[in-house]
Amino acid sequence: MKVDGKPRRTIWVEGDGWSVGIIDQTALPHRFTTVRLTTLEDVARAIATMQVRGAPLIGATAAYGVALAVRADASDEALERACAMLAATRPTAVNLKWALDEMVAAVRNRPREERLAAAYRRAAEICEEDVAINQAIGRHGAKLLAAIAAKKSGEPAQVLTHCNAGWLATVDVGTALAPVYVAHDRGVPLHVWVDETRPRNQGAALTAWELGQHGVPHTVIADNTGGHLMQHGMIDAVIVGADRVTANGDVCNKIGTYLKALAAKDNGVPFYVGLPSPTIDFSLSDGRAEIPIEQRGTDEVATVTGLAADGRIERVRVVPEGSAVANYAFDVTPARLVSGLITERGIIAANRAALAAAFTQRAQASSITG
Amino acid sequence: MKVDGKPRRTIWVEGDGWSVGIIDQTALPHRFTTVRLTTLEDVARAIATMQVRGAPLIGATAAYGVALAVRADASDEALERACAMLAATRPTAVNLKWALDEMVAAVRNRPREERLAAAYRRAAEICEEDVAINQAIGRHGAKLLAAIAAKKSGEPAQVLTHCNAGWLATVDVGTALAPVYVAHDRGVPLHVWVDETRPRNQGAALTAWELGQHGVPHTVIADNTGGHLMQHGMIDAVIVGADRVTANGDVCNKIGTYLKALAAKDNGVPFYVGLPSPTIDFSLSDGRAEIPIEQRGTDEVATVTGLAADGRIERVRVVPEGSAVANYAFDVTPARLVSGLITERGIIAANRAALAAAFTQRAQASSITG
Repeated sequence: MKVDGKPRRTIWVEGDGWSVGIIDQTALPHRFTTVRLTTLEDVARAIATMQVRGAPLIGATAAYGVALAVRADASDEALERACAMLAATRPTAVNLKWALDEMVAAVRNRPREERLAAAYRRAAEICEEDVAINQAIGRHGAKLLAAIAAKKSGEPAQVLTHCNAGWLATVDVGTALAPVYVAHDRGVPLHVWVDETRPRNQGAALTAWELGQHGVPHTVIADNTGGHLMQHGMIDAVIVGADRVTANGDVCNKIGTYLKALAAKDNGVPFYVGLPSPTIDFSLSDGRAEIPIEQRGTDEVATVTGLAADGRIERVRVVPEGSAVANYAFDVTPARLVSGLITERGIIAANRAALAAAFTQRAQASSITG
Repeated sequence: MKVDGKPRRTIWVEGDGWSVGIIDQTALPHRFTTVRLTTLEDVARAIATMQVRGAPLIGATAAYGVALAVRADASDEALERACAMLAATRPTAVNLKWALDEMVAAVRNRPREERLAAAYRRAAEICEEDVAINQAIGRHGAKLLAAIAAKKSGEPAQVLTHCNAGWLATVDVGTALAPVYVAHDRGVPLHVWVDETRPRNQGAALTAWELGQHGVPHTVIADNTGGHLMQHGMIDAVIVGADRVTANGDVCNKIGTYLKALAAKDNGVPFYVGLPSPTIDFSLSDGRAEIPIEQRGTDEVATVTGLAADGRIERVRVVPEGSAVANYAFDVTPARLVSGLITERGIIAANRAALAAAFTQRAQASSITG
């Protein structure tokens, strides 16, 4: 997608042919800066500190982390250590584990001298696959938005989204926002209500920024606002991303997603989830009970980072000293609240049979290994 | 309640016998400062800029605004102008209109030379009535919390609250937090989960601060978090305040309240509203359609104010320049989601018959004037 009019991806191999470039997403929307990663440790740190984030991009970045690890040491032991270190960076997104499994499969059964090239090749493929998947999600979802807009005789389709599942959460195009971009590019009139998404403000900082860069009309709101808008008929569809979806269609996504799904249900607003199939974890069947929910540092809640009047990026404390703080990063929306899963293979009902039918091979592989 | 161990109210007549002191709530939790109000205009500004806020405290402050106006000019015209100016400060809380009506009734049918004393007398009564009402709310609600704690064999009762309906929202004691304070003072073990309550962060800034000053265990969370906690059995009861309650029990309160009510319903968690009867608007019977929802300045969403590392209070921007922002201040929770209204006359079901039976006189007065 575009930044200052120029096409960009979130991750790339640098001109030297081996080091890995990323956008430092912790500095957005105020500064656009890139970072060069040269070691496994660089990659692990970039994921853990959320310079890169979003389930698909975490997977892609971890893939290059394995490649950088193989570059330093192509032994089985080093490969294993690298996967263990990367797997420990973030517990919730299943794409991370998926990408590591893919990398190990691509590298392990080869002689050492072939491993480096194989690792870079598979990492690049994972990135290209992500883009192709997201383009397909965009095409399927754009039909929904076009149909909504068609019924509104020229009025824009009103979409609510939570957190950032745009191109910044992926290699390119995005998941939840892919339908928005495709529909917008096709001339479908639409407007996106953007939850700011405390505590890290990925909605205000990332989603609003990338929609603005691409020229998509949007309005930032406090996370508390979506229910009111739905009660007043101001939202036609909710589309969010996912960090993990279980075999039965439970959706783990950024904390607060569940509240929007409840409001959508209460007001008859369709609630969609845009996701690539690597986000589906066919080994789980009860999202609430089985998906580990990351608890992050309390500073993310106790403080807010933004642009001060003098142009410095400043962190200010909003919670009194002495008050305890908790920071749960994700929640689980039960499948019963989900109107449809927008995947690269079309819009799938959020239930076990429909998911297994759409992704037979992965569902079967899981039932064998599980 | 206590600040640094000393008892305090949110509003008082100063030692000069006529000017009015308030706590500047926009500076909390970082600075405890008081402001002296000497004119009607001072009062209108203090309400509009939210140096004082919370439906009951808005009413009490407006009452003293009328007294200050009468002090400057005891004519009927001046009284009318004062009420018009004060009524325009905040559109949603009905206590404001109630307090102005009370003041007019106390002053208008008197000779001019008696009006000043009558105005100060009625304003003081409104304050004392508020405290007595809140103490009664506290006694009724504390029984609920004691019953919950009794079933948990020593484990604390877990309460979730949204925004600030503590003593800072009233003259003293609070509405939603009155049961918490009374139960805590009686030795009932409890813990309060405090929604930060974007965009103005009244939960983090005010509720956490006043609970901390009073020694009540509490944890601040992002507004997105409550649903997750309820899904995992971590909340025993939700208690919020109200800015206006309709004759049929719809509850208008800080934006985001509705989302927590939906989550409570979905998880079988009781959802209570603590309110004094002046918050009930017997002239309305459909909260969603009839209650005007204040839209406030977009800076409240686009920026966050907090304490910088160097001790200055700083405002930082969190939304990209060029992104539109919307700021709806309240939403309406339908009566069907409310387990009970904790009032000075006990815990009342959220429906027309129960409210009319509990507050016969006010319900009848409204049906006559309406």
